[in-house]
Amino acid sequence: MNEKDEKKAPQTFSVRTDLAIEARELAQKDTTDTLEGVAVETDEQADYSLTHVHILSPEGSARMGKPMGHYITLESEKLKENDADCHEKLIGLLAEQIRSLAKPKREDCILVIGLGNWNITPDALGPKVISKILVTRHLSGTLPAEIEKAVRPVAAVSPGVMGITGIETGEIVKGIVDKLHPSLLIAIDALAARRSNRINAAIQMSDTGVAPGAGVGNRRMLLDEAHLGIPVIAIGVPTVVDAATLVNDTMDCILEEMIRQTEKGTAFYETLADLEQEEKYQMIAEILGPYTGNLFVTPKEVDAVVDRLANIIANSINIALHPGITLEDINKYAW
Amino acid sequence: MNEKDEKKAPQTFSVRTDLAIEARELAQKDTTDTLEGVAVETDEQADYSLTHVHILSPEGSARMGKPMGHYITLESEKLKENDADCHEKLIGLLAEQIRSLAKPKREDCILVIGLGNWNITPDALGPKVISKILVTRHLSGTLPAEIEKAVRPVAAVSPGVMGITGIETGEIVKGIVDKLHPSLLIAIDALAARRSNRINAAIQMSDTGVAPGAGVGNRRMLLDEAHLGIPVIAIGVPTVVDAATLVNDTMDCILEEMIRQTEKGTAFYETLADLEQEEKYQMIAEILGPYTGNLFVTPKEVDAVVDRLANIIANSINIALHPGITLEDINKYAW
Amino acid sequence: MNEKDEKKAPQTFSVRTDLAIEARELAQKDTTDTLEGVAVETDEQADYSLTHVHILSPEGSARMGKPMGHYITLESEKLKENDADCHEKLIGLLAEQIRSLAKPKREDCILVIGLGNWNITPDALGPKVISKILVTRHLSGTLPAEIEKAVRPVAAVSPGVMGITGIETGEIVKGIVDKLHPSLLIAIDALAARRSNRINAAIQMSDTGVAPGAGVGNRRMLLDEAHLGIPVIAIGVPTVVDAATLVNDTMDCILEEMIRQTEKGTAFYETLADLEQEEKYQMIAEILGPYTGNLFVTPKEVDAVVDRLANIIANSINIALHPGITLEDINKYAW
Amino acid sequence: MNEKDEKKAPQTFSVRTDLAIEARELAQKDTTDTLEGVAVETDEQADYSLTHVHILSPEGSARMGKPMGHYITLESEKLKENDADCHEKLIGLLAEQIRSLAKPKREDCILVIGLGNWNITPDALGPKVISKILVTRHLSGTLPAEIEKAVRPVAAVSPGVMGITGIETGEIVKGIVDKLHPSLLIAIDALAARRSNRINAAIQMSDTGVAPGAGVGNRRMLLDEAHLGIPVIAIGVPTVVDAATLVNDTMDCILEEMIRQTEKGTAFYETLADLEQEEKYQMIAEILGPYTGNLFVTPKEVDAVVDRLANIIANSINIALHPGITLEDINKYAW
Repeated sequence: MNEKDEKKAPQTFSVRTDLAIEARELAQKDTTDTLEGVAVETDEQADYSLTHVHILSPEGSARMGKPMGHYITLESEKLKENDADCHEKLIGLLAEQIRSLAKPKREDCILVIGLGNWNITPDALGPKVISKILVTRHLSGTLPAEIEKAVRPVAAVSPGVMGITGIETGEIVKGIVDKLHPSLLIAIDALAARRSNRINAAIQMSDTGVAPGAGVGNRRMLLDEAHLGIPVIAIGVPTVVDAATLVNDTMDCILEEMIRQTEKGTAFYETLADLEQEEKYQMIAEILGPYTGNLFVTPKEVDAVVDRLANIIANSINIALHPGITLEDINKYAW
Repeated sequence: MNEKDEKKAPQTFSVRTDLAIEARELAQKDTTDTLEGVAVETDEQADYSLTHVHILSPEGSARMGKPMGHYITLESEKLKENDADCHEKLIGLLAEQIRSLAKPKREDCILVIGLGNWNITPDALGPKVISKILVTRHLSGTLPAEIEKAVRPVAAVSPGVMGITGIETGEIVKGIVDKLHPSLLIAIDALAARRSNRINAAIQMSDTGVAPGAGVGNRRMLLDEAHLGIPVIAIGVPTVVDAATLVNDTMDCILEEMIRQTEKGTAFYETLADLEQEEKYQMIAEILGPYTGNLFVTPKEVDAVVDRLANIIANSINIALHPGITLEDINKYAW
Repeated sequence: MNEKDEKKAPQTFSVRTDLAIEARELAQKDTTDTLEGVAVETDEQADYSLTHVHILSPEGSARMGKPMGHYITLESEKLKENDADCHEKLIGLLAEQIRSLAKPKREDCILVIGLGNWNITPDALGPKVISKILVTRHLSGTLPAEIEKAVRPVAAVSPGVMGITGIETGEIVKGIVDKLHPSLLIAIDALAARRSNRINAAIQMSDTGVAPGAGVGNRRMLLDEAHLGIPVIAIGVPTVVDAATLVNDTMDCILEEMIRQTEKGTAFYETLADLEQEEKYQMIAEILGPYTGNLFVTPKEVDAVVDRLANIIANSINIALHPGITLEDINKYAW
Repeated sequence: MNEKDEKKAPQTFSVRTDLAIEARELAQKDTTDTLEGVAVETDEQADYSLTHVHILSPEGSARMGKPMGHYITLESEKLKENDADCHEKLIGLLAEQIRSLAKPKREDCILVIGLGNWNITPDALGPKVISKILVTRHLSGTLPAEIEKAVRPVAAVSPGVMGITGIETGEIVKGIVDKLHPSLLIAIDALAARRSNRINAAIQMSDTGVAPGAGVGNRRMLLDEAHLGIPVIAIGVPTVVDAATLVNDTMDCILEEMIRQTEKGTAFYETLADLEQEEKYQMIAEILGPYTGNLFVTPKEVDAVVDRLANIIANSINIALHPGITLEDINKYAW
């Protein structure tokens, strides 16, 4: 999609992505200049890459379509695989990043929230993480001194989705926050990627809160510091690609190929651009049928992979939050 | 157990029951007088019986070990069985009783809470009911006028248990109530009966709130009007008998039989009474081993029966709360 | 895809569909002639359509890429919806079709097999149907005469998939068939459609056995009369579209549009055709990334819809097989 | 229970246990002589004990109420706990015992069967083990030589229970065995203990096959070498105590206490013995009500503990059967 289209796209079809690294790819497509108001650093390693995207100004935010703040994305094909040694390394790395975003003070109570619908496999990441969080808030004062020193007060809730509860998720979370007064919220959610090779192969952490409508579900809440009064760290994994986005990108891909092969300025060159703008959205609707906005693309082993990702994220959080807990302790505990 | 023992029992072992009708059996055991401060009416029918227990005074409450208020118990062997026609009748009856306790006004928003741990089958009744409640609060204002008239705003949440969340259930519920301001809370919970023939064969409704420590779990919250500021209707089903209660009752049963066969005033008659008081608790601990307080008795088909009971209770609530919804509508909806 | 491509397709990419009605659409695309060796009748009704495809000759079979035999497809948007009244009608219709294919004799024992992986939601249709089949084979001789008359001996097994058992599904089924000697096998399976508007909106029944590689899984067994020695009725629902098929069809769709707009014989017209043949497969691989063959498209409510479809199919089978059982009996039983 | 009662017990009530070590306690109760035809050795360690019971003669078998053969029981409170280090040790120990019973030859194919009903938590042990078995039979010939050397052909099936399939479990297993010709069957099942302190704290392995009616279910199959034509190793864990057995043992316990306190030869001493024989069974029925044979005792955390036990058993089998697989490999694989 070129820049001109991008501006018109909202009228017809907009590419769906919850990842800052993909928003940046889209925003920067037609320019080799750096994107104003957006700073990016990438650390490439053999097994993984770690990208920091900083959205620094309102202009950057508008260009990216995402709130100002710090986005960290770990990408690794190993996340999908059964490789305990590599996962152990990634858990350590993630714990470090979570700690750098959260900067938790020693006695602070932290609330972890698992967003999403536990009945829809690729949306169940949040609730699955919650079931593996080492909760300790209720034990405060009852633990032996040695263990008391090793843990901080942590609570964890899966509030469900509006279709199940009849309540905006943001209202439930606000109610619990106002009652418990934690000093930080960590929200876990399943996301939608634009590119299918990122499905289950990336973990995004940010200090910007959770933007509405993420992942598979249709959630409208906005969980951020402005709404809740406490900092919010969001952690998410793209578990799906929106089917309409896939179809749209397929069209773009073939059109670009043709444009590449067509002489600029010819009548046909114009036809190609015109076709794209006038008829693309209608074609998507035709191809996907009545389900359109509701179809997603996911790998068949999504159940097993989401379980594994929930383990990785929960353990990263457990290690990041509890000062004296190691992965070895957790494996013993969680076995 | 005779009255003298009863008074001493708390030091050693106390019979565990969450049912008002069983509390009354225990309280009244040695007297043919009516129990002061407690009024009871029973309506016996072919397929079911319906018992109203009113605890009317602080004395009655102390004798019963339960808060003052109105307890309604439906007993029917049919609750355990696969008999749709009979269940339809019982759903109508329950809906009527719930309405009589709740006295809901037309536009009131009502919050339904499913207590208990979804990971422990006989404790999962509450969460299972929640998944079948017709929630409508989030649709307010978006429905066609005709449907808008048929439903009231209803929300439904399963807050989880403290071991999972690190938060007292009462705190979560209070947080949500303070945010949503419903006019009534309905709390569903699994209970413990004293008698195994009442397992899955009774439904108790009351206007007294939920007393701590019900059912399988170890929950300490108190969900009542004093704590939450709104009326609380509790609905529960005994899904287990505490194993220590079963062992204790077995001992009582055999001791009573022997006392019946022994001449009063003989040395052996005294031995029997002494044995009971001195050694019963120790015997229970010996028989049940290290698990003691943690073992329960439940029928093997508990999973299927709890599903069926959750359906009955959810549909009773759906019909009781929504003015224009019938069981036929629900079957169509829920199929 | 035009005919020329079709012939080359196996080298590069072949459209994936398990539906006879879609195989016929593909086979007939470029001709208005009737397809030789293939007879088709369609009965269009307000709520549904019923299509009979008869593959009558080896030529027809080769053109269709499917074994000779009788394929019946019920299509209805209502299958996805919560409409008990309409489902009741469709269950009656399906039961009739199953009976017409199965022609079961009064005392015959019939074995129902649920194919697919219960851990992968859109592949779990078969196992879910099995859990709702009214099995009676083990009760033979122990039932009251009146009930004995109403039922026939039915057994039901979910053999799992090879990745779970280490055994070809066909071997397990053959072992059970050789031991039980049923007179008919009914196999239930999740299928892949080509068109996303057919997802969860069609039920295909056939007397041809189950062809390999259906649905989400990679199963290689062939369950048919030649292999098992008894007739095999296959019943399936398309629950997914293969993502590569969706991408391929999207490309075709846009290329066709362009070819329509381009003058025949021009250089660019040739470019379009060349592009299609040379680069399409590579583009698919590029767009879908390393997951390619493994990604599927499915609606987010797939869990709930598959449960509903399993109910419809199981009840159709229950009514078709048991001479004296009605839907009313089943609702009572299964409630 | 004294010996005289034991002989009469079958008419009235018989203690339910699937454990050889408990059968021996019952058989030997009133004698200090060694039990003829039964040899017992126990190895007591800090964390566990390992008991070998050899039933050597038909007389021993009759006294024990169990088939002749070798029974190995590992007892450890640690089995219930979250102690990965200790579990690792016990897995090694169990793998060794399984190997000593199975004596598997290098290329033999081995079939693992998970008995029990996956819908009933304490009966789901077998199916849960199956889902964690490293199956390899279908990979034979497709693996790299190095891995091929590390594994043997293993297949694994959960046949379900008769109420679900309509087929005797023994028939399904026989059908699969006759088709696959494995050289050994390993059958996993949930058992019933007599003593509640053994619940989830013991693992019994034997070379005698699986006796009918084990655990929670009512299964009548007999899976042994005589029926199947191949050796059968049974592995089981007591996950429940039959409630009637608990009540009966409670009665015995209190009666014994009284008999101890009563002078032999007095009229009351006789009363006690008479009571026991004439009325015990009726009392059990009275106490347990209509559910009698159907109630079991189980700890509330049964779901989590059964998951953990399934892990321990599956990994013991994986290590015992595959010559080149270690626990480290499995943790990597299964993570």
